[in-house]
Amino acid sequence: MTKIAVLGTGIVGETIGTKLIELGHQVMMGSRTANNEKAQAFLSKHDGKSSIGTFADAAAFGEIIFNCTSGGGSLEALRLASEKNLNGKILVDLANPLDFSNGMPPSLSFVNTNSLGEEIQRAFPDVKVVKTLNTLWCGLMVNPGMIHGGDHNIFVCGNDAAAKESVKGILLSFGWIGKNILDLGDITKARGTEMYLPLWLSIYGSTKNGAFNIKIVS
Amino acid sequence: MTKIAVLGTGIVGETIGTKLIELGHQVMMGSRTANNEKAQAFLSKHDGKSSIGTFADAAAFGEIIFNCTSGGGSLEALRLASEKNLNGKILVDLANPLDFSNGMPPSLSFVNTNSLGEEIQRAFPDVKVVKTLNTLWCGLMVNPGMIHGGDHNIFVCGNDAAAKESVKGILLSFGWIGKNILDLGDITKARGTEMYLPLWLSIYGSTKNGAFNIKIVS
Repeated sequence: MTKIAVLGTGIVGETIGTKLIELGHQVMMGSRTANNEKAQAFLSKHDGKSSIGTFADAAAFGEIIFNCTSGGGSLEALRLASEKNLNGKILVDLANPLDFSNGMPPSLSFVNTNSLGEEIQRAFPDVKVVKTLNTLWCGLMVNPGMIHGGDHNIFVCGNDAAAKESVKGILLSFGWIGKNILDLGDITKARGTEMYLPLWLSIYGSTKNGAFNIKIVS
Repeated sequence: MTKIAVLGTGIVGETIGTKLIELGHQVMMGSRTANNEKAQAFLSKHDGKSSIGTFADAAAFGEIIFNCTSGGGSLEALRLASEKNLNGKILVDLANPLDFSNGMPPSLSFVNTNSLGEEIQRAFPDVKVVKTLNTLWCGLMVNPGMIHGGDHNIFVCGNDAAAKESVKGILLSFGWIGKNILDLGDITKARGTEMYLPLWLSIYGSTKNGAFNIKIVS
């Protein structure tokens, strides 16, 4: 049982937070304002097993922090969470830097030699950023067994080996199969997982089914 | 049996050209200069079943054109091939716009709201550009059965439905399984398949095995 902060009250935060509570963790959901409606609804659903607060409250509470905010707002949300509440901790970054300002499909704010994962790591050098779970629909993040017997791949990257091991442990508890958790290397490898999003969107657009993932075969 | 132009004398052009010859097609390999050494070697290996020439010679010969040039040089190669030799024909674009000028890993010259496939389509509006096969190692392009019983995915996109059907026919002849050929839509969908390359490179870097592909599971 670990104290975990979930930053973000959208469907990703709710899904991750609910799963972590089911697994027996103590979860505090953080949002911009302490009286966020979605956070209140989450609290009512998980009475006695969760708490809510500002991004800073949640970050201070958590031993591990899940960034479930939308990618366009992640850096600001983490600044509000405050470096002093994040330093030394594992930050699991699930976000994609999608820019919807020019309509659909979204563009990526960082590409090629940069990524949101790296931007976060640079902005918070004493935080152990681990990028993962950003390559699929949130329902599958916490329930990979929903499709193909759970036999498909998830990626992990980050600069801190021990932090990645901790996050792999969480992924195993979510139902991911060890051999399918592929460590891509340092945080620069976030580029590839984020730049995969346009293909994800194209596949989704073609198949009309978001409950899919990729399995590496060789 | 079709007259097919293969533009490019690198490993991709050689692999595609060899497979097309094995399938009984007439292949002309095109390169910048008519006396290209690699093209000469290809000709010697496939004596009587192939011919070689400039990009323009090959484009004039082919009823279908395979762009197997490196992505950074594709637009120039196609300009040399000349619009009048390409117009009305199917151009199968296998290239990725990789820019190695800043070292490894390469950057993509076109991202987000653009792609090499679209650049080519815009530069040659009367050519039927079909993007495919750019998401995996060339050995697997023509021999998908080499791994996982051939049960993995390949993408096709382009603006001309009939041209895509013709290209699907070629993919079937290469050994691709019909249900695994996913039509993503128009040529703008080239963005996703090209932007997948950084993830491909990361997976390759992590597994040290380029003979892999992805299978969509749901």
